[in-house]
Amino acid sequence: MEITYKAIGKIRSPFKGPEGTPIQPTAAGSAAGKIELLPEYQEGLKDLEGFSHLILLYHCHQAGKAALTAKPFMEDKKHGIFSIRAPSRPNSIGLSIVRLEKIENNILHIKDLDILDKTPLLDIKPYVPEFDRRKDVKIGWMETNINKLSSLKDDGRFADK
Amino acid sequence: MEITYKAIGKIRSPFKGPEGTPIQPTAAGSAAGKIELLPEYQEGLKDLEGFSHLILLYHCHQAGKAALTAKPFMEDKKHGIFSIRAPSRPNSIGLSIVRLEKIENNILHIKDLDILDKTPLLDIKPYVPEFDRRKDVKIGWMETNINKLSSLKDDGRFADK
Repeated sequence: MEITYKAIGKIRSPFKGPEGTPIQPTAAGSAAGKIELLPEYQEGLKDLEGFSHLILLYHCHQAGKAALTAKPFMEDKKHGIFSIRAPSRPNSIGLSIVRLEKIENNILHIKDLDILDKTPLLDIKPYVPEFDRRKDVKIGWMETNINKLSSLKDDGRFADK
Repeated sequence: MEITYKAIGKIRSPFKGPEGTPIQPTAAGSAAGKIELLPEYQEGLKDLEGFSHLILLYHCHQAGKAALTAKPFMEDKKHGIFSIRAPSRPNSIGLSIVRLEKIENNILHIKDLDILDKTPLLDIKPYVPEFDRRKDVKIGWMETNINKLSSLKDDGRFADK
């Protein structure tokens, strides 16, 4: 079964290619950028400015061929693609929670980017702790590696070459 | 720009139609169900069982026509579609964080469902607090309504009719 979506805009970011890009928003050191929403969707932004954080869903347009196992940045061992966050997955949908700074017409100024420049945007949802935050979480193989997060950058391994 | 994905499986749930379905996993009272992953993707599940929570991305196949403003369940006022979580959005991608109970071959047993039966699944990502949890969050118009969450159920307003 095939499902077709349309890009609703694109993300503008200081990161022009995979290499050197932060691997998660929380490791992004406040990197700033913006969303250029297509003007025909601007009405959908009503009341969004009261939210501090947004969930962005986007198409990882530079992701390489999908694999079912891959070595993540945090560990030199192969894991199933659904237990890592690499972009080269069966459906290359990326998910990042970013900070919303302000909205000017169809332009959203955002921070904490780990997203490549010109990435096609699929959806914006308000981040709501009561919906999206969980306690008592187990993180499997990442448990012994998560402390490396802030020191890691993308090395291009998941890029389309 | 059009982007085409393929369903990687489907979600089986006790909720056969929108009416009466919980509006968020955190209001789902532990509703249990399963993911039937297509067997060709089973290798991608390697090492996933160590994670307690999964982020599911899916296609809201019963969503009605997209609107740019809509009345959410929590308040009888119209808000921009990007400031609410309704399924009738420009790209009807749903996001739920569910609990993983166990995996048997290509079947994942999950809890905290707010998803309709037979929903096409697009992606499974491990939920990782270090990536996905934010503090000091502002939730705009929801601030005065969020206490209603646990008492609300879907009334079918976003269904394809």
